[in-house]
Amino acid sequence: MGSPPDSAFAHDIRVTWGDCDPAKIAYTGRLPWFALDAINAWWERHLGGDGWFQMELDRNMGTPFVRIEMDFKRPVTPRHVLRCYVWPIRLGETSITFQVDAYQDGKLGFTGKFTNVFTVADQFRKQRPPEDIRALIEPLIAQAGA
Amino acid sequence: MGSPPDSAFAHDIRVTWGDCDPAKIAYTGRLPWFALDAINAWWERHLGGDGWFQMELDRNMGTPFVRIEMDFKRPVTPRHVLRCYVWPIRLGETSITFQVDAYQDGKLGFTGKFTNVFTVADQFRKQRPPEDIRALIEPLIAQAGA
Amino acid sequence: MGSPPDSAFAHDIRVTWGDCDPAKIAYTGRLPWFALDAINAWWERHLGGDGWFQMELDRNMGTPFVRIEMDFKRPVTPRHVLRCYVWPIRLGETSITFQVDAYQDGKLGFTGKFTNVFTVADQFRKQRPPEDIRALIEPLIAQAGA
Amino acid sequence: MGSPPDSAFAHDIRVTWGDCDPAKIAYTGRLPWFALDAINAWWERHLGGDGWFQMELDRNMGTPFVRIEMDFKRPVTPRHVLRCYVWPIRLGETSITFQVDAYQDGKLGFTGKFTNVFTVADQFRKQRPPEDIRALIEPLIAQAGA
Repeated sequence: MGSPPDSAFAHDIRVTWGDCDPAKIAYTGRLPWFALDAINAWWERHLGGDGWFQMELDRNMGTPFVRIEMDFKRPVTPRHVLRCYVWPIRLGETSITFQVDAYQDGKLGFTGKFTNVFTVADQFRKQRPPEDIRALIEPLIAQAGA
Repeated sequence: MGSPPDSAFAHDIRVTWGDCDPAKIAYTGRLPWFALDAINAWWERHLGGDGWFQMELDRNMGTPFVRIEMDFKRPVTPRHVLRCYVWPIRLGETSITFQVDAYQDGKLGFTGKFTNVFTVADQFRKQRPPEDIRALIEPLIAQAGA
Repeated sequence: MGSPPDSAFAHDIRVTWGDCDPAKIAYTGRLPWFALDAINAWWERHLGGDGWFQMELDRNMGTPFVRIEMDFKRPVTPRHVLRCYVWPIRLGETSITFQVDAYQDGKLGFTGKFTNVFTVADQFRKQRPPEDIRALIEPLIAQAGA
Repeated sequence: MGSPPDSAFAHDIRVTWGDCDPAKIAYTGRLPWFALDAINAWWERHLGGDGWFQMELDRNMGTPFVRIEMDFKRPVTPRHVLRCYVWPIRLGETSITFQVDAYQDGKLGFTGKFTNVFTVADQFRKQRPPEDIRALIEPLIAQAGA
């Protein structure tokens, strides 16, 4: 499976009682939510604090999801912080794919791939990403693949 | 993509304001939750009212998820009921895979595949499914594939 | 505490595994969500299918919450449907207060009061409720108090 | 309303796109969840890292909620961190009441009071809090009231 690349962004999530189900582990329905939080935090880190909220409202750029896939390797619990590594692995003409690997206590909890398309937010119409976004992402993909 | 088989179970979800994000569509993080609700309802239907809660507590059988994948085809909104069709598509030695296709107003909103393993709940240890479960599921898979 | 008035609207919620925490009961954080779902359903019932989503987008009327209070009487579990009775108990100049009493198996799980203000949605500015809304609600309050 | 006491614990929450509804503000149903996260974090801070999860599983002490009340003063948005101040305001024979005041950009978003009872977790039976818990909380209440 390999490790996250050095350029991956790390986002820490506090897993709590309220995230857990009666099996005493985080409910599966919460795990995609955690991964999405991590991807949103990746944007905040790389766009000067702007996450999906600011991207949509201030930049008129949407990134709706078209596909997610996740493999769950170990139960996630409140015993440790959930460290989510996020990095882009593919930039298409109008889409981007992120990988999110989430660790607790050094062990992989889940790994997933998430694909978004870029849209003109107020028209919900596909678009190519702005040049500054492309310029930001391409080197990160190159670094990750190296 | 095809239609759900006739033997698919239909579970209706009321999508509401609180499920939606500022793009005025259901937040992506809610969609796996909806699919899981539908799978839980599938069990309730086929096990005399017992869903995951009763399966774990009364039958000591867990079915943790090991993989999910979902393709999002159209935004989900509160304008229509979200009708989720659920059916098993594969029964392995110790695992089961469900397909969930969710429609609004007759159009496919998302489609996904979800794999669980059967466990002894109080030991969190993989097991083969009980014979009555196997006897229940195998004909459904045969019907779906026909 | 008394019973809900005959004119109260009943909204049923399926409580599931994913709503529960490791104490094997619905997580407290889910219970206000359930009550809100019931209030939204009350509007749908009384406005020809329009809930908060349609009220905001189609009628330009918002009803943000200014206060909630809830008393939890018994744990809520997936063993029974959660029947939520909803009815208005007060209509102010620009506000409305609902009571929500939630029962499982005939026993009160929680009771709460929820106050919203009426707003012009796209201006987030307080307003008096439209006359048709007032005409709808006043008799219901009279019936409830009778 | 006053300010939080100096001894109040501050817990920061990142409000995101997924927490918001189509009115572009955090959905009301999320706000009690935030307050609960802050109370859980208060316990973690004061019990050497143990939150509700560890309290229940490792200490066999539950603290189920019997009452919540919240007043919403200003919309909560992703534009600023949500800083939640938490402090105990009353310790009864078998109960504790916390106040949570949540600020964004220096302005009060909501204020709430939350009452829990202490229980023997595995028996779901009321109990007096252990002496070390009482010894921890009493001075904090005295400081807050000073």
